[in-house]
Amino acid sequence: MWRYEPPLRDIRFVIDEVLAAPADWARLPACAELDADTAAQVIGEAGRFAAEVLAPINGPADLEGCRWRDGAVTTPAGYAEAWRGFVDAGWPALACDAELGGQGLPQLVNAAVYEMLTAANHAWTMYPGLLHGAYECLKAHGSAALRERWLPGIVSGETLATMCLTEPQAGSDLGQVRTRAVPQPDGSLRITGGKIFISGGEHDLTDNIVHLVLCRLPDAPAGSRGLSLALVPKLLDDGSRNALRCDGIEKKMGIKGSATCVMSFEGATGWLIGEPGRGLNAMFLMMNAARLLVGLQGLGHLEMAAQNARCYAHERLQSRAPGSDSPAGDPIALHPSMRRVLNRLQALVEGQRVLAYATAHWLDLAGHDADPAARRRAQDRADLLTPVVKAMLTRNGFAGASEALQVWGGYGYIHEYGIEQTLRDSRIALIYEGTNEIQALDLVQRKILGDEGRRLGELLDELAGEAVAPASAPEELQAFAGALAAAIGDFRSAIGALADAARTDPTHAQAVAGEVLDAFGLVLLGWAWARSARIALAAAERPGADRAWLARKRATAAYGRDWLLPELATPLRLIRARGLLLPSAAQA
Amino acid sequence: MWRYEPPLRDIRFVIDEVLAAPADWARLPACAELDADTAAQVIGEAGRFAAEVLAPINGPADLEGCRWRDGAVTTPAGYAEAWRGFVDAGWPALACDAELGGQGLPQLVNAAVYEMLTAANHAWTMYPGLLHGAYECLKAHGSAALRERWLPGIVSGETLATMCLTEPQAGSDLGQVRTRAVPQPDGSLRITGGKIFISGGEHDLTDNIVHLVLCRLPDAPAGSRGLSLALVPKLLDDGSRNALRCDGIEKKMGIKGSATCVMSFEGATGWLIGEPGRGLNAMFLMMNAARLLVGLQGLGHLEMAAQNARCYAHERLQSRAPGSDSPAGDPIALHPSMRRVLNRLQALVEGQRVLAYATAHWLDLAGHDADPAARRRAQDRADLLTPVVKAMLTRNGFAGASEALQVWGGYGYIHEYGIEQTLRDSRIALIYEGTNEIQALDLVQRKILGDEGRRLGELLDELAGEAVAPASAPEELQAFAGALAAAIGDFRSAIGALADAARTDPTHAQAVAGEVLDAFGLVLLGWAWARSARIALAAAERPGADRAWLARKRATAAYGRDWLLPELATPLRLIRARGLLLPSAAQA
Repeated sequence: MWRYEPPLRDIRFVIDEVLAAPADWARLPACAELDADTAAQVIGEAGRFAAEVLAPINGPADLEGCRWRDGAVTTPAGYAEAWRGFVDAGWPALACDAELGGQGLPQLVNAAVYEMLTAANHAWTMYPGLLHGAYECLKAHGSAALRERWLPGIVSGETLATMCLTEPQAGSDLGQVRTRAVPQPDGSLRITGGKIFISGGEHDLTDNIVHLVLCRLPDAPAGSRGLSLALVPKLLDDGSRNALRCDGIEKKMGIKGSATCVMSFEGATGWLIGEPGRGLNAMFLMMNAARLLVGLQGLGHLEMAAQNARCYAHERLQSRAPGSDSPAGDPIALHPSMRRVLNRLQALVEGQRVLAYATAHWLDLAGHDADPAARRRAQDRADLLTPVVKAMLTRNGFAGASEALQVWGGYGYIHEYGIEQTLRDSRIALIYEGTNEIQALDLVQRKILGDEGRRLGELLDELAGEAVAPASAPEELQAFAGALAAAIGDFRSAIGALADAARTDPTHAQAVAGEVLDAFGLVLLGWAWARSARIALAAAERPGADRAWLARKRATAAYGRDWLLPELATPLRLIRARGLLLPSAAQA
Repeated sequence: MWRYEPPLRDIRFVIDEVLAAPADWARLPACAELDADTAAQVIGEAGRFAAEVLAPINGPADLEGCRWRDGAVTTPAGYAEAWRGFVDAGWPALACDAELGGQGLPQLVNAAVYEMLTAANHAWTMYPGLLHGAYECLKAHGSAALRERWLPGIVSGETLATMCLTEPQAGSDLGQVRTRAVPQPDGSLRITGGKIFISGGEHDLTDNIVHLVLCRLPDAPAGSRGLSLALVPKLLDDGSRNALRCDGIEKKMGIKGSATCVMSFEGATGWLIGEPGRGLNAMFLMMNAARLLVGLQGLGHLEMAAQNARCYAHERLQSRAPGSDSPAGDPIALHPSMRRVLNRLQALVEGQRVLAYATAHWLDLAGHDADPAARRRAQDRADLLTPVVKAMLTRNGFAGASEALQVWGGYGYIHEYGIEQTLRDSRIALIYEGTNEIQALDLVQRKILGDEGRRLGELLDELAGEAVAPASAPEELQAFAGALAAAIGDFRSAIGALADAARTDPTHAQAVAGEVLDAFGLVLLGWAWARSARIALAAAERPGADRAWLARKRATAAYGRDWLLPELATPLRLIRARGLLLPSAAQA
């Protein structure tokens, strides 16, 4: 009943048509040999793996969970086998450089793959989820010796990796990290301290696990400037266990197949990655990619919720739809309130896919475009979009799962129907890799106010390209252009008011950061819908085009324009209103 | 760490000051002897029971769950003992008539009690949750013999009760119910059929259980007009087991201590309640009260989430608040984004408490006021508010739990911190007793368009009494009055547009029913905040008043006015926009 159908057609439409990425790939030396068909084939294979291997073990693993005993963790049935299949097929190496044993495919292809893996099985996908980030970090900042020793295993997937950041007193505020690293005469470090919330800190998928540990060298200054990064393997090269241990796993709301570990390092041997005191810097490289990945989790959950809700709503008969006299009732998909839910989820899925994939593509261009100006422009866009993609897509993944759950009525609350697990699994993504509140602050303070709106202004100018339609264009496109032009104009003006307020009141911009992110997200969606509709209309003219499918895409985009874009009204009002906050009181 | 502090002070403020209920009680023969202090004492005792008995077993019961074996159900540790304590203290009889062995207290007091019980332990409170409804139903529609046999046990709590409505093919559409009832020569019925989602269908709290079963007599017409209601006990008077059985319990997302049963009736002996074919009518009497109760569950969850988030936010140090240079960071309660969350939850709690309690009070007046016109007016208001209280309070209970969860960051996702259980437990309330979508349709079609806006118009006229402030009133009250006047005017005008549209397009009103409910809920909150602020300001003039507490109430109301009332913008826009829905498609 609960099943995953990889949305390959829409993925290909976004990559090939909306983003026209293959033309860009041809310009990039790193992936000049990749064409659209090859990319689609890789994505299709990954979709099959997600649907056939990962989706079937998702529900059972939720019930079984991970088991911890004496420091060892057993993952749910099928997890280790699935990992071997993943490694054998070469998936861990997908976006790694060819000269390091990887397949050299762009982040964009990787993004599509991870959307599907998470949709099918978020908990399992946590294990490889940090692998590419560890690869990037080690490749950029590791010494030659560390790279030579550890990169091949990471690329092949023989070794998995963790990011050990959080400590009980250091969550959003990593400057409070206390784990100590003491240099040894042989150049290694002795690492001592406790870490929490370490995804995959211990498991039975691979023999060895490489931990990237945020720590503090002796005499390091307080705060985040005193942090360094160390590589600390579970097994040392002589085969012995390093002095680190998993002290337990958390009992969580969801992603129960993912072992969330309490780790203690008790004089464990490690090696510095990058410069002393530059630990956060070494991690920031992987930050954009990791945040994009989390946004893709939200997208995957929403796709899964939307497609299963749609199927169920067409099967379930209950009451009569307006104008019907069917005695047994009609499919609930015909009832207006359910149509609202289904339409909304689909419009969000399709619009958000454009934004997430665009961000991945811009990261590819930022990394590989031969033109430095193009690299900078792409990086600017990726910087701006990353917090929005992370926060908006995860919020809509969770909220959309909850909206979808209503389609099942009482069945939605029962495990076997699947959607309640999606609701629970999707909730973590609003928290980790920087809470959504942190994303909003990053957007407003660093990305918008930080450069006095330069990057934002440039991007809005670019988006405005979709907000004009020649007088000869079909009425439908005029409507998209008009709605987008109004949205961009209103948003620009609200940001102007925000910047004015920020000059005298440091609190207001922080207080409405969430509204700024919401509003920017809607403007971006308005752009994505307008662009998708314009391109779908053009594509329908081609011989052999599937006009019914393209017409549905345009209708979905029009639904977003007419029903979702008006949601801008509330955040824009609040950004301008400059409401006051209550004094913080410990008691009501 | 996770604990419940009954909000006795605010409860009393709402009952005594905002609603001035004790003055009304004095007029009602049924509770003329009740005074404000006695009511407060009863509520205080219930609060202590909730905090001391129910709250401590809430978390462990979530992990333990219910166990089913061979038709019997074992509830979690402490549940049966808590039930005995509840019965011994006479709580089941609280709102039952004195002449039937009850305490004759108003629904309003009962509402406060159930808010607290649910806040402390939703799953446990499911067991007595339907008892009062069964009492009302049996009292009004049962034969003398049935009343005499079964009412005393229900009043005392010696016997618990269920509502057996849902069948696999009959959820929101009860007209599809198939369970058969065949009359026997002795006047009893033989009941045969299967029911699902039966809360408390089997358990170990009481020896006997009374099932109220929706069923169909031979030759009954199809649809809801053919439904009858039967009383079917688990144990017959000779001590033998009736021919009914619990075939299993559901594995649910939350309220795991509540046994949600699959029931089969295999020629079980029962007796008709009320007229043949009038089964739904007999249940509608309990519907308003049951829906109000579900709204109170949402309120209880929100209160629990808000008060625990506030405590945690004042303990947890992380990063610096604007303007601070504390090296260890500041309490996160000082960070603007967290203050927004805490302020919002508190404003919703306080405004919604007024609305839920007002509905309960109107039900009391509708039942007992000596003046028929006053009874009708109170019933009109309760009818209008009930779907809003059910849907808005449950949605905010769940959404508020999710917003609160962000305050804990990663800890929020872990079972031991409590909030993730609140999120899971609260989710069911959006579904049962009529999904929130059904509530919105009920509001729009039956309650608003059904009488061409008469009841709504009368209520809005009444609310508008808070939307005027004399020129001499303090600026603060002018601001409340002005905001409320604008909200009422905008809402009236949107409802006019809705009614116009409904004349030509039957789909639009259904499509925007959720927005109508959202907007009406905000208008009602605007009224509740304005009224609470006006009354708090006046109360501060009294000798001995706690001015700091009253000032905080006003500030909370002002936060609602300035930050939440502007959310009207979006639903009002969508009600007017007459957007189109997509044709329903089985595939994307």
